[in-house]
Amino acid sequence: MRSVTDAAAFRAQFPVLDRVSYLNAGTEGPLPRRAADAVAERMQVEVTGGRAGKAYMEGVRGLAGDLRAGYAGVLGCDPADVALTGSTTDGVNTVLGGLSLRPGDEIVTSDEEHPGLLAPLGRLKRLAGVTVTVAPFARIVDAVTASTRLVACSHVSWVSGQVVDTAALAATGVPVLLDAAQGVGAVAVDVHALGCAFYAGSGQKWLCGPEGSGCLYVSRERRDELTAPWPGYASVADASQALDSGPAETASRFDHGFPPGLRSAWALASLSVFEEAGWDWVHGRAAELAAGLADGLAQRGLEVGPRGRSTLVAWKPPTEDLDAEVARLAEAGFVARSIVAHGLIRASVGAWSSEEELAALVDAAVA
Amino acid sequence: MRSVTDAAAFRAQFPVLDRVSYLNAGTEGPLPRRAADAVAERMQVEVTGGRAGKAYMEGVRGLAGDLRAGYAGVLGCDPADVALTGSTTDGVNTVLGGLSLRPGDEIVTSDEEHPGLLAPLGRLKRLAGVTVTVAPFARIVDAVTASTRLVACSHVSWVSGQVVDTAALAATGVPVLLDAAQGVGAVAVDVHALGCAFYAGSGQKWLCGPEGSGCLYVSRERRDELTAPWPGYASVADASQALDSGPAETASRFDHGFPPGLRSAWALASLSVFEEAGWDWVHGRAAELAAGLADGLAQRGLEVGPRGRSTLVAWKPPTEDLDAEVARLAEAGFVARSIVAHGLIRASVGAWSSEEELAALVDAAVA
Repeated sequence: MRSVTDAAAFRAQFPVLDRVSYLNAGTEGPLPRRAADAVAERMQVEVTGGRAGKAYMEGVRGLAGDLRAGYAGVLGCDPADVALTGSTTDGVNTVLGGLSLRPGDEIVTSDEEHPGLLAPLGRLKRLAGVTVTVAPFARIVDAVTASTRLVACSHVSWVSGQVVDTAALAATGVPVLLDAAQGVGAVAVDVHALGCAFYAGSGQKWLCGPEGSGCLYVSRERRDELTAPWPGYASVADASQALDSGPAETASRFDHGFPPGLRSAWALASLSVFEEAGWDWVHGRAAELAAGLADGLAQRGLEVGPRGRSTLVAWKPPTEDLDAEVARLAEAGFVARSIVAHGLIRASVGAWSSEEELAALVDAAVA
Repeated sequence: MRSVTDAAAFRAQFPVLDRVSYLNAGTEGPLPRRAADAVAERMQVEVTGGRAGKAYMEGVRGLAGDLRAGYAGVLGCDPADVALTGSTTDGVNTVLGGLSLRPGDEIVTSDEEHPGLLAPLGRLKRLAGVTVTVAPFARIVDAVTASTRLVACSHVSWVSGQVVDTAALAATGVPVLLDAAQGVGAVAVDVHALGCAFYAGSGQKWLCGPEGSGCLYVSRERRDELTAPWPGYASVADASQALDSGPAETASRFDHGFPPGLRSAWALASLSVFEEAGWDWVHGRAAELAAGLADGLAQRGLEVGPRGRSTLVAWKPPTEDLDAEVARLAEAGFVARSIVAHGLIRASVGAWSSEEELAALVDAAVA
């Protein structure tokens, strides 16, 4: 564990925090200064150097490879099992579109899922005749039956930060797709220990990367059960025979399009901030700060939504006008959001958060 | 038509041209200085302002709307008929994945297609039992039969710049998907006049936008024949009921994921360079310069590949070692590429090209 000074130095890398208490990494993360530096440097390369030729393309591929390795480090797996996507939704679509599901196949999901998972599930329901069973998040495992083909749910619920019982899900033997939008970068992840078949995460949230970035883990055992639903130049083994070629060897066959050099450079710069601080420290500090915030709110009489060891804290505000409450908090310098369907205000707590601002948030929330 | 001075001023906006004869917009376009300025400005917004809240999201949506309108201006259609994608391949996949094709359905394509079209066609062939008929590019219309469900081919062939006979294709009555990678931004486009059902283009080539950008035109008549194969938050009419919601109203239902603010800002900055110069001038000058290059090469005895009124010029070099020839030209300051399967060297000529550099290229090519 680092000292308070280290925490302050870590926080100081995120300029937005000089201005406001930014508590919405669950939507998009705060950006470290060096992300802007990396972007400026990359633009210089592209504008003055041009964007063609062997060296240029090798540079782009090199950055993509570094990013794949960076994500693999966060996920606890081999880079060969990671695809570069543009979002959690991309990863979800790759899995749901790539499995050859048939009418009558059942997918079990939960009642706390994001549209990014529900919209792809809705497509399978309408077009492929797949049965989608919606179970309470905390009891999703009870809904798994012999006809369940896939469990598709959040690792960490975006509503108020509950963590799914991955051990129980793994024990069912049914392949599990985890929506990791509030998981990857937020909580410690080891995809092998989680026992999931697929883990789809966002780059722009807890990894503080660019909009339009993300990663998908595909377990080695399940790789060949998926066909790339969105094939392109790099998804086939032999692009010169693209009409008849088999798939590329690794999970890169599921990459979502050409990997932009700018996206990779930015994502890597942001990852480096966490790697330098140490992921254990980052995860530990964020979880403790979030738990402290939840305790503080509860002690002041607010009803805090059910949560696990995660970085999200949500509570019922004193008013039912959620828009007004979000605006009131913003006025007071706290950037939070509402979860309308559940009548909650949600704060995303990161290792970059400070004890002082969270104490002040408690005061502001009860006022 | 502008003066020579105007052409020089236009060219001066692209810094890479100070350094080399950049002739590879067919892979990725040269970048105008203001693209870097727009990116720097956008990063400032995101780094210091944070990336959450109503105003931020409205800003991102506003930029996406502006970009949609910008693409619509290039395509000659209503913005409601344009989806924002990450590439030509994305657009192709949206169409091929969104049509409900069945075993035995036939798609006619050509022998000059890019892996970005062939890989998605290969998927349909293997997984959906669709028959893919490959016809010579210049005679593709002859291959259309009563059982043809779709024609999918390039508007402008990436090999040596032939232009497909869109009027003849439209006259067949079969829906046509045009791969516009070498079309949009390169040649004058009016999707209604072309008579195509779908037009899938790249943003990073002739529009000089970011890697991972592009657009897809979907004709109003065909919109409901496509289901969004890659649905997400914004593709459904009601995200709060994403599992059961119908599609969003316009072609935005086919948008490929969240539209990053940085991508939009960059793409718009690059578009503005062309809009200021006037698209008619841009297309006219590029076509004339390309025709002049082709004539110059032919007059010096080189075999120039078949081409139409396009911006690509390809020729058989004096040597069979294409890599060596590309390297030799690069050494002499000309950034071109090879088309290996056809034994050609290809130059992409833009309105930013100069008469002088193209004359010098002719000298270099025959040397």
